[in-house]
Amino acid sequence: MKVSILGHGVVGKGVWDMLQNNPCFEVRNVLVKKGEKSADFMTESFEDIQNDDSELVVECMGGVDPAYEFASKCIEAGKSFISSNKALVAAHGIDLLNLSLKKDKGFLFSAACGGAIPILQNLHLARKSDSIVWAGGILNGTTNFILDSMDRRGIGFDEALAEAKALGYAEFDPTADISGMDTMRKIMLISMVAYDVLPNSDYHVEGIQSVSAYDFKVADTMGCTIRLVGRCGLSESGRLYSYVQPMLCKRSDFYAGVCSNINMAQYEGKNSGVMSFMGQGAGRYPTASAILRDMTSFYEGQKQMLKSGCLFGFANNSSKECEGSYYVRLDSSHVPAIEDKVGVKEVVSEKDGMKCVITEAVTVKDMHDLAAELRRKGAQVFFAQVKG
Amino acid sequence: MKVSILGHGVVGKGVWDMLQNNPCFEVRNVLVKKGEKSADFMTESFEDIQNDDSELVVECMGGVDPAYEFASKCIEAGKSFISSNKALVAAHGIDLLNLSLKKDKGFLFSAACGGAIPILQNLHLARKSDSIVWAGGILNGTTNFILDSMDRRGIGFDEALAEAKALGYAEFDPTADISGMDTMRKIMLISMVAYDVLPNSDYHVEGIQSVSAYDFKVADTMGCTIRLVGRCGLSESGRLYSYVQPMLCKRSDFYAGVCSNINMAQYEGKNSGVMSFMGQGAGRYPTASAILRDMTSFYEGQKQMLKSGCLFGFANNSSKECEGSYYVRLDSSHVPAIEDKVGVKEVVSEKDGMKCVITEAVTVKDMHDLAAELRRKGAQVFFAQVKG
Repeated sequence: MKVSILGHGVVGKGVWDMLQNNPCFEVRNVLVKKGEKSADFMTESFEDIQNDDSELVVECMGGVDPAYEFASKCIEAGKSFISSNKALVAAHGIDLLNLSLKKDKGFLFSAACGGAIPILQNLHLARKSDSIVWAGGILNGTTNFILDSMDRRGIGFDEALAEAKALGYAEFDPTADISGMDTMRKIMLISMVAYDVLPNSDYHVEGIQSVSAYDFKVADTMGCTIRLVGRCGLSESGRLYSYVQPMLCKRSDFYAGVCSNINMAQYEGKNSGVMSFMGQGAGRYPTASAILRDMTSFYEGQKQMLKSGCLFGFANNSSKECEGSYYVRLDSSHVPAIEDKVGVKEVVSEKDGMKCVITEAVTVKDMHDLAAELRRKGAQVFFAQVKG
Repeated sequence: MKVSILGHGVVGKGVWDMLQNNPCFEVRNVLVKKGEKSADFMTESFEDIQNDDSELVVECMGGVDPAYEFASKCIEAGKSFISSNKALVAAHGIDLLNLSLKKDKGFLFSAACGGAIPILQNLHLARKSDSIVWAGGILNGTTNFILDSMDRRGIGFDEALAEAKALGYAEFDPTADISGMDTMRKIMLISMVAYDVLPNSDYHVEGIQSVSAYDFKVADTMGCTIRLVGRCGLSESGRLYSYVQPMLCKRSDFYAGVCSNINMAQYEGKNSGVMSFMGQGAGRYPTASAILRDMTSFYEGQKQMLKSGCLFGFANNSSKECEGSYYVRLDSSHVPAIEDKVGVKEVVSEKDGMKCVITEAVTVKDMHDLAAELRRKGAQVFFAQVKG
C-alpha cells in the first residue's frame, strides 16, 4: 500500500524508520518544513502529496492549522487519513469523520490519545459487546512527571517544570499540558469513541499550575499523593459528564504507582469491570508504534473508529457520579465560603495564613465554579478530588 | 448470526445473559449437563448442536475431554468455534487451528487467557507492527488472592487457601492454580499468539505451594512482597524461553499494586515499550465479556488469532534473559549446595534451622533444577526470583 507522511519531526521520523522494514507499505512522499528537504523522498510542498498516488496519508504535524486543511484536501483527493494529532481531532474530528464517510475513505487516530496505549482501539471494540460506564485516567506524561518529581523529591512546581523541560518531557510552552487542556482533548477523543459525543462545551478543567510543595507534604501526612486525572462517563439519567482535575490518591492505590511520564488509561465495562492500560503515552517510537497499529488495522480493512452519528454535545458535571470530597488549600480568610457553600469535614493543615481542608461531598461543577469565584475575589486556591 | 453454546455454568450462563440484548446473535441451543434441562433452548445431547443450523459455537465447558471432541466435531460440521478453555487450547490449539484453517472456519479463544483483559487480541494486533520482546504477567487470580492475603494479614498458606475457597476464588481442587500450571497454560497461549510457538516441553513451573508466612515476613523486612509471575520471550539468539515462578518485588513496584484476584498481563514491544493491562482475570461477566468480544470480532470478519505456521516447540530457559538473583529459603544444612552451585550474596534471615539467602545471578533453568535436586534429597525449599 502506498503511503505518504505529513511531518518528519519526532513522530514522523519514527514512522518513517519503522516503515523501512515493513513489507505492507511503500512510502511515496514525506512533507518536511521549508528548507529541510535533504533526500529524494522529501518534499516541501503539500501539493506533491495531495496529487501523488498514495492511498493513505499519515499526519504527524500537530496543531490544527494547517493540519485540518491538509486532512480535508487529502480525503477530498480520495486518500484515507491517519492522525496522531489530538488538537486536530478534538477540534475537527466530526468534520473529518463525516467527510471520510462521504468519500468512503478511512479515518483513524488512535495514536492521538495515550501514545502506545491502545485505549481508543480497545474502547472501540469493547463498546460493541459491553456498555462503557466511564473512561479516562492519567493521560498526560508531562504533568505526571512533574507531580511525581514533586512528590518524590519534595521540590516545588517551578523546579519540577524546569527539570521536565531540560529532560525533554515538557515543551518550551507547556501551557496545554499543565493547564489540563491536553488531557481534556484526550477525554474528548475517548468520549467520541465510547459515547458518540464530543463534549466541546461545559466541561471543567483544572490543571496543576496551582499545586505546591506544601500540598504534597500535607498529602503525605494523609498517606496520599496527587495525580492529574481526566474522566468522562454517563450518569444514571444518560447524560454525559466530562472533566479534568487533580486527584488525591492513597499510596496503596495503583494510581500512585503510575510514575514518571507513564500514562494509564482506564474504562469500566458494565460486564468486564474496570480495565486499566499502562504504558508510554508519548515519545517517538511508542507513538509511531500506535500509528503503525492503525495503519495495519486500515490495511486489514478497518476504516473508522467513530460511528456515523457522532455529534457535538454538552458535558453535565452535576450528577451524583461527579460527587466527591475535595482537598482544598486556600487563604484562611476564604475558608468560610467553603464552609457555607460546601461544608468542611476536617482541617488537615494550617500554615502561613493558608488552610488545607477536606470538604463534604460536592459535584465537580460546584467545586470548580466555587474555586473560580474565589479566585475572582483574589484567593489562592488549589483543589484535588479525594479518590474514593 | 446463529450461535449455540456448550455449557451453562458460571461462564456459559454469563454469555447467555449477555446475548439476551444483543441484536447480532440468535441462540439456537445450549448444551447442559444430564438432568439439568429446564428450558426449551437447552439440550442434553451434543448431537443437537452438531446438527443444528448454528454458524458459530461458543464453548464454556472447561477441561480437555470431551471439549476437544466436541470442538473437532463442530468445526468438521462447518461451524466456527470460540473457546474460553485454556486447558483445551494449550493441549489442542494447534490441532484446532489446522482443522479450522482446512475447513476455512473461525477459531478464537481470547477469553482463555486473562479473562476480561484483552491481552491476546492486543498481542495479535501489536505483533503485526512491532516485535514482541517478551510477554507475561500475573495471570492467576486464585494465587494472587492467596499471596495478597498472606502479605496483608500475615496468615499462613493453608488459612489463605481455605479463605479463597470459601469466597469462591479457589476451586475445590485448586491444584492447577497453586502449582502454577494454570499460569503456564496461559503463557502457552500468549506464546502461540506472540511467537507462533506452543512451548509444550522443557518449560519450568514453580507454584506457590511452598510459600510460608515466614517468607512474607522476611520479604517485608526487604520492602518487598511476593507475586506469581509467568513469562515468555525470545532470547538474543532467537530461542524461546518460557517459565512460571514466584517473584520478590518491591512494594513501590506496581506488581505489588496488583491486589486481590486482579490479573495484570504485559508485553514489551520493541517500539511501543512495556504495555501493562490490568483487570478481572476471571468471573462470570468479565469472562463472558471477553467471549462476546471474540464473537463481535468474528462477526466483523476476524477468523483467526494464530498464524498458520504455529508449531509445538521447546522452551530454553538458559539464556541471559532468564538470569536473575533469587530469594531462597531452605534448611540450613542444604545452604552449602547453593553456595557451591550458584553463590550466595547475602543471608537475609535465619530461624528454626532455616536460612533465607539471596543468591548470585543464575538462570531459571539452573535454579529450578537445583531446587528439584535439593527436594529429592529431602530439603524444604521455597524460591522466588528477585525482580530487577
